[in-house]
Amino acid sequence: MGIGNIFKAFQPKDKVFFVLFEEVASNLVKMSKEFHEGLIDFDLNDDTLLKKMSDYEHKMDDLTHEIFVQLGENFITPFDREDINYLASGLDDIADYIFSSAKYIFLYKTPEVKEFSEFSLLIHKSCVELQNAIHNLNGFKNPAEVKESCIKINSFENIADDVLSQALVKLFESNDPINIIKVKDVLEYLEIVTDKAEDVANTIENIVIKYA
Amino acid sequence: MGIGNIFKAFQPKDKVFFVLFEEVASNLVKMSKEFHEGLIDFDLNDDTLLKKMSDYEHKMDDLTHEIFVQLGENFITPFDREDINYLASGLDDIADYIFSSAKYIFLYKTPEVKEFSEFSLLIHKSCVELQNAIHNLNGFKNPAEVKESCIKINSFENIADDVLSQALVKLFESNDPINIIKVKDVLEYLEIVTDKAEDVANTIENIVIKYA
Amino acid sequence: MGIGNIFKAFQPKDKVFFVLFEEVASNLVKMSKEFHEGLIDFDLNDDTLLKKMSDYEHKMDDLTHEIFVQLGENFITPFDREDINYLASGLDDIADYIFSSAKYIFLYKTPEVKEFSEFSLLIHKSCVELQNAIHNLNGFKNPAEVKESCIKINSFENIADDVLSQALVKLFESNDPINIIKVKDVLEYLEIVTDKAEDVANTIENIVIKYA
Repeated sequence: MGIGNIFKAFQPKDKVFFVLFEEVASNLVKMSKEFHEGLIDFDLNDDTLLKKMSDYEHKMDDLTHEIFVQLGENFITPFDREDINYLASGLDDIADYIFSSAKYIFLYKTPEVKEFSEFSLLIHKSCVELQNAIHNLNGFKNPAEVKESCIKINSFENIADDVLSQALVKLFESNDPINIIKVKDVLEYLEIVTDKAEDVANTIENIVIKYA
Repeated sequence: MGIGNIFKAFQPKDKVFFVLFEEVASNLVKMSKEFHEGLIDFDLNDDTLLKKMSDYEHKMDDLTHEIFVQLGENFITPFDREDINYLASGLDDIADYIFSSAKYIFLYKTPEVKEFSEFSLLIHKSCVELQNAIHNLNGFKNPAEVKESCIKINSFENIADDVLSQALVKLFESNDPINIIKVKDVLEYLEIVTDKAEDVANTIENIVIKYA
Repeated sequence: MGIGNIFKAFQPKDKVFFVLFEEVASNLVKMSKEFHEGLIDFDLNDDTLLKKMSDYEHKMDDLTHEIFVQLGENFITPFDREDINYLASGLDDIADYIFSSAKYIFLYKTPEVKEFSEFSLLIHKSCVELQNAIHNLNGFKNPAEVKESCIKINSFENIADDVLSQALVKLFESNDPINIIKVKDVLEYLEIVTDKAEDVANTIENIVIKYA
């Protein structure tokens, strides 16, 4: 077997990570889409949304675990093991905090607050950009496109910051401390989702800087 | 000196980490046992429990510092330096959040809430499994046993999640906002302890995947 | 070109990181100084302080981004890439949480609480010590001095912990739940700043242990 063939033999193992990350990204896009659609008009007596989010979150746990198993087994990785670790954990965090947001909406039986769906739209848009970034990271074929998606995710996080600020100011006007505690918790979980998306975008940008 | 002897010469240095990690784990088992026993029947006017937790936390700080000193000095480590770093920091976080939970119970003079001791029991059980996992990690002599302990810790964290959810629902029924703020803080600190134990279990699982 | 010259050729690239970290540290010292001066006597109707903090925070984002760009381009780094990553992210977190503290003071229109400026003084002192530690880290010329600064930062964090505890006890005596929620948020953001400074000090100590 010549040198060229040896490298070809390694290629499929390396590709495993991109296949898994593309599946993770696709799962996040679907999860955030159903989350957003569910929040536009939700019924606290029907916990279908919560069950769906729980299923997606478990699916993400399985995929993340599979990435760590591959990381343990594969000598060859497409980029630093540390970066694969950060990327996988960061993407899993997004799913965890989407699920937590949904959980606390139902647990607290919070009233419908219009900012919830403003957040979920920003979250869904961020997941779509993450999917695009991860797709274009494969083989480092389009670093400019990756970078553009990361910039968009950063801007969504900035908008989410403002949505939170304005929602909190309005919320405190209600003068109802128990309602404030409940809705504030949910708003903060939602905002953390956009923070986690930004963390992943930063990880992706750092990977592009190193390899592209 | 033959190659074999060279390796033997390195061994003691390598072992230093397991000796330290076993001491850390043993400290956490004792700390969590006293924490749990203290919470079963506690008296807010007697801060013995708080002082004990503070002593254990300082002991943990010293041990963690010693691990970092050894990490700086030892060229040979039993597994990735990064993993030793994560493991040491993660175990220290467990002690920090047990101490914070105790501190806020006394600081806020919170009423005795039955979920406090449900959490402390889960925390103690998690620490016992961490001790078992770390013991069997030494020399990678029993990866199956390590894995089983990690799975148990994950399940304790899942139970703790449910304990928190149910405790919060009940707490909000009190309709007393100031009490809600105080008890919610303590419950959340307690739940973070189980999160931190799960983080350590994940770090340990990743180490096993890589080396066993 | 002899070996010696090769090393000289690499030196300037390596120095880039210290130049950037010194600029980051200098920026944090100025930011924390203006933050502290602004909090000693602040007027909620004049958001000059908030705008200044926002400007500093953006400056820090730019510097942090530049460090990551250099990290991607430079093959030679003065210490582990991972440590440069931690150091840069940790210093950026300090600025983020100073800004968040300022933001919530104005957003919530919190009353002037004397502990705010106690915190900001501890924060400023920590930033001055960080600047000293980073300056002496350059070329590892004075490890004892670096260590001394790190110990001071740890002690400031301990004091901040006590400031928080005492402020919370006093705050709960007000019996005004909405005020408690607001002021508690700001106090916790301020305390996180000192935690982040301690994290950076620990990162710096670990670097010194490895290289000095």
